[in-house]
Amino acid sequence: MILTVTLNTALDLTYRVRSLRPHASHRVSEVIERPGGKGVNVARVLAALGHEVTVTGFVGGGTGRAVRDRLSGTAGLTDALLPVTGATRRTIAVVDELSGDTTQLNEPGPQISRPEWATFLAHYEALLPSMSAVALCGSLPPGVPVGAYANLVRVARTRGVPVLLDTSGEPLRRGVAARPDLIKPNAGELAELTGSHEPLRATQDARRRGAHTVVASLGADGLLAVTPEGRWRATPPARIPGNPTGAGDSAVAGLLSGLMEKLPWPERLARAVALSAATVAAPAAGEFDRRTFEELLGRVSPRLIA
Amino acid sequence: MILTVTLNTALDLTYRVRSLRPHASHRVSEVIERPGGKGVNVARVLAALGHEVTVTGFVGGGTGRAVRDRLSGTAGLTDALLPVTGATRRTIAVVDELSGDTTQLNEPGPQISRPEWATFLAHYEALLPSMSAVALCGSLPPGVPVGAYANLVRVARTRGVPVLLDTSGEPLRRGVAARPDLIKPNAGELAELTGSHEPLRATQDARRRGAHTVVASLGADGLLAVTPEGRWRATPPARIPGNPTGAGDSAVAGLLSGLMEKLPWPERLARAVALSAATVAAPAAGEFDRRTFEELLGRVSPRLIA
Repeated sequence: MILTVTLNTALDLTYRVRSLRPHASHRVSEVIERPGGKGVNVARVLAALGHEVTVTGFVGGGTGRAVRDRLSGTAGLTDALLPVTGATRRTIAVVDELSGDTTQLNEPGPQISRPEWATFLAHYEALLPSMSAVALCGSLPPGVPVGAYANLVRVARTRGVPVLLDTSGEPLRRGVAARPDLIKPNAGELAELTGSHEPLRATQDARRRGAHTVVASLGADGLLAVTPEGRWRATPPARIPGNPTGAGDSAVAGLLSGLMEKLPWPERLARAVALSAATVAAPAAGEFDRRTFEELLGRVSPRLIA
Repeated sequence: MILTVTLNTALDLTYRVRSLRPHASHRVSEVIERPGGKGVNVARVLAALGHEVTVTGFVGGGTGRAVRDRLSGTAGLTDALLPVTGATRRTIAVVDELSGDTTQLNEPGPQISRPEWATFLAHYEALLPSMSAVALCGSLPPGVPVGAYANLVRVARTRGVPVLLDTSGEPLRRGVAARPDLIKPNAGELAELTGSHEPLRATQDARRRGAHTVVASLGADGLLAVTPEGRWRATPPARIPGNPTGAGDSAVAGLLSGLMEKLPWPERLARAVALSAATVAAPAAGEFDRRTFEELLGRVSPRLIA
């Protein structure tokens, strides 16, 4: 069983409009509602790959009820979300029909009280013994201490559970110092963490800061992995047009599933790159296209870097 | 008791962002949730003025639950909304902190089935006998026949209940032909109905099409009323800066409350103009500022037009 933690779950709405114009009024022609937050996205991809996965984090209000309702139909996925007083945030992706471009509006998330955070810590510790890996994903809602992920990384390491961290800014900086097994920053997060815009140098620097393994996601350039066993670059065989929303979460799911199946690093990376590209290619944001995934999987050949 | 009908109720969200830029990502710094839809707004203002009011229309899903929860605390307001399978729509007003300008995103609303519409008609007929006036307000959700308001106007007239219609486009055109007691179009709706952009000519033409009385709302120029007792113009004493959202709904509430209290037309119009201006002046969209209302009330003097 894999545990994914999403402290700031979301109800993700996708709105289709003709063309977004500031200060005008728009009729939304289509509304799609999905449960969201990075860890929830990772869990859905893991479940689609046939893994058993438990989802935890905070959930509240009518939006939280909508998230839980929609998760309850997913085979292989167990809901261990913790109810809180505040309401789960919404995120809104406004897609222009004319250009296909997306404008994003993200609510901040509910205020988490000190007792709610303490309850979560106990809940997390109780879940860990039955887990073979844990992924800590996404932003922190208001009220959660900035060192939250560092704390959750330490608890997982004490229990001997491999822990992946995928966040940004100060929570990432502190989390890395707690020595997670794996981090998966994108180019911007990596540059913010290390101060370097040169991916290989920055990735190596992130390891020195405490991460056992660093897999950097570089958009269309694929993944750069610096591991104790070696360094690899894995790139998609072609430029895939589409919507990159959720591509990083699919890469995290690919890496975790490879860890569970004890695949060698090149196979893990090939899977993560193919899943990521198949997510860009899917018509709905955050889904992956299974045919594209299977078709690409054999065509990604990670290169060892000297 | 006054009845307001809102076939397309809404959960109105107001988002504050620094400045909306198409195709960028935005953190929403503040989220305000309110029950909405024109008839709901009218009812809230009527209740605040001390009138007993019943709200009906369709409501569904988690968003519908949020609307009902928020209405339940309003003194003087009775919830007679009819549950449907589809979910109540959201409307999103994105307010730029820098300019104060607003970008509007409106979901279309739930699909109403034929049996749901038939159930509503029976529900409406059952409510009417205890009502002294009815207001039919706003857009039609998908699935409701375009002649819906014409039908509701005729039923009210058969029962001898005064009926006000505030909508646009084809539902207004058909509704007017069913001879409502009062319509309150804005300049755009009036021009669309009559083909004339000259307010006095268009207002008189709207009466010839069937409306007993026409009160046109002309934004900062106030109201133009063509009634069987005479024609008046009522303008605010000064240009009021602020957010015009809900100003038309407050005018409708002013006219209805004046009808209930059997006020002479000049007093009804003065009240409607002062409420409308006090809504523009209020910090939250759709609320009215009571001090501004009371201060302006004595300063609006409708002029009789020869």
